[in-house]
Amino acid sequence: MFSAQYIGNKTFNVQSGTAIPPGPGEVRLNVGYVGICGTDMHIYHGVMDARVSPPQIIGHEMSGVVAEIGQGVTNVALGDNVVVRPLDYCLECPACKAGHSHVCQNLKFMGIDTPGAFQSSWTVKARTLHKLPSNVSLKMGALVEPLAVACHDVSRARVSQNEDVIVIGGGPIGQLVALVAKAKGANVMISEVNDTRRQFAENNGIRTVDPINQDVIEQVNTWTNGKGADVVFEVSGVQAAVDVMTDIAAVRGRICMVAIHSQKPQVDLFKFFWKELELLGARVYEHEDFEHAISLIANESLDLAPFISSVNQLSNIGDAFKSMDGNPSGMKALVSLIEEVQ
Amino acid sequence: MFSAQYIGNKTFNVQSGTAIPPGPGEVRLNVGYVGICGTDMHIYHGVMDARVSPPQIIGHEMSGVVAEIGQGVTNVALGDNVVVRPLDYCLECPACKAGHSHVCQNLKFMGIDTPGAFQSSWTVKARTLHKLPSNVSLKMGALVEPLAVACHDVSRARVSQNEDVIVIGGGPIGQLVALVAKAKGANVMISEVNDTRRQFAENNGIRTVDPINQDVIEQVNTWTNGKGADVVFEVSGVQAAVDVMTDIAAVRGRICMVAIHSQKPQVDLFKFFWKELELLGARVYEHEDFEHAISLIANESLDLAPFISSVNQLSNIGDAFKSMDGNPSGMKALVSLIEEVQ
Repeated sequence: MFSAQYIGNKTFNVQSGTAIPPGPGEVRLNVGYVGICGTDMHIYHGVMDARVSPPQIIGHEMSGVVAEIGQGVTNVALGDNVVVRPLDYCLECPACKAGHSHVCQNLKFMGIDTPGAFQSSWTVKARTLHKLPSNVSLKMGALVEPLAVACHDVSRARVSQNEDVIVIGGGPIGQLVALVAKAKGANVMISEVNDTRRQFAENNGIRTVDPINQDVIEQVNTWTNGKGADVVFEVSGVQAAVDVMTDIAAVRGRICMVAIHSQKPQVDLFKFFWKELELLGARVYEHEDFEHAISLIANESLDLAPFISSVNQLSNIGDAFKSMDGNPSGMKALVSLIEEVQ
Repeated sequence: MFSAQYIGNKTFNVQSGTAIPPGPGEVRLNVGYVGICGTDMHIYHGVMDARVSPPQIIGHEMSGVVAEIGQGVTNVALGDNVVVRPLDYCLECPACKAGHSHVCQNLKFMGIDTPGAFQSSWTVKARTLHKLPSNVSLKMGALVEPLAVACHDVSRARVSQNEDVIVIGGGPIGQLVALVAKAKGANVMISEVNDTRRQFAENNGIRTVDPINQDVIEQVNTWTNGKGADVVFEVSGVQAAVDVMTDIAAVRGRICMVAIHSQKPQVDLFKFFWKELELLGARVYEHEDFEHAISLIANESLDLAPFISSVNQLSNIGDAFKSMDGNPSGMKALVSLIEEVQ
């Protein structure tokens, strides 16, 4: 087998290694495609070196084929196309016991805290697997994980038909959130500073607003006849978005916090009180979000093909990362490990 | 009739006037008791002069007796003891149409935006009235409004039996929130800087923590075996409380924003994301919160007598306000108008 080891300083070493046979309850996968996530880019930039401790195999947006099955595994069979829900939870902490294992207090995120998918052979717990239907290709399967994030966000914000929804930030997750909300029957707008990303949204039938050259509050008020947005997704991580989110939300509006704010921004808590707003943190996904994401692709409810900006072989993983670095027109770069597995 | 006009500069003029006969759908009340709210204290300090425009009759925590009935009123009868839910909503804005008239986009708060209860005769819309059962005195009836605030907060935060609840801020509303949550079967702790207020809570069977001399995070962790609080009520309005609220909340914990933050504090939005926290703004009350508050008093579920710190006649309203000014040991000062009505 081959793997790409992240060794720090924006560098990967592609090297051969030995496949790990699956233990009880485990499955060995031949990895098909792996997408590059925003978090992977953060790792690439070295900002997560304390958590990742190189050399480390990263990658968590993936698809693959069941190649070997450990003792007691019954949920998948040899040759199944699958995706991994990359969460390793403890089932013993208060959060797990309360039924929230996806935000386990001791959660290990596979591909960040433990070895990930940038290897041709990946051995994982069988409980992390979801089967892909026959009409979902391995290439599209690599989009299930980010789509599941969007499904979780939309579910957490309780988006329903005919609601007015605004997504602040038109990166890959923001665009997917918009599409999942639209598939729910909501009216959706994306606020995005970058022309190319606004055009990408418009091409997908999502209306847009330019927060640099337009007055977002005025646009939302006009759009919603003075009501405001029923749901606001904050996916940008900047203070300007936090400033506007409480202004554009309707009375009793829900604001879903998807972005990672590494600094503590100033928040208009008075407006939370005055309009009885709701803020809902949303992180990763649950079992049903993966199933929802798979069904949206299988039913062709969403056209995700435009999200795939490039496909590189694992040997060119450095180029794949480089192509995404500071490139707002790139949505999703895939790395293929398929030649090694066939 | 007599009324107390707030004329600015911490001063009231008590003067005689003419009772207003009730129009269609209106009721004239002989006012019994009126409590002094934190908001009344803000008005007293002049910080709300722009909104209140003196001379103005303020006051909104009240009880009274139906003295005269306008055309078409069927929900109350002459002689009924009642309380006023002091919200005048438009029923036409998007918030009202969505069923949230208590946070109407054009809400007039009676006693702030329109004349209030510091008058022996008050003419109001019949739809604002709730009847008091015979075993609830007019004196206790004046506590219904602040208790309804607490009922609304507890309802909005979805407090349920056996949950661990912490209330930050042990003023009158914080203490009432704690008691209502306790009546729901929750385990309740109050965090409060003032010794007298902590003692008040302890006397009511509520455990306390001193955020100046104790480590609140450590205390809550020990108390909840590392889980954190299921529900946090922020009733203090200070940055230190906002800093700690996201630390002491459990994974998926709910934080109810009761306090008015006139400045935009810094909020740890990362923790909202990481622990999937929920922030719920809570303002005033709905019809059912008043009914809940009345039933809690009528069923003797709560002993609210200790909340009444003093009772003054309307002629001494200035003394009543003075007695509450900067006095953390005072919970609720009542003003009696009962001599005028009997």
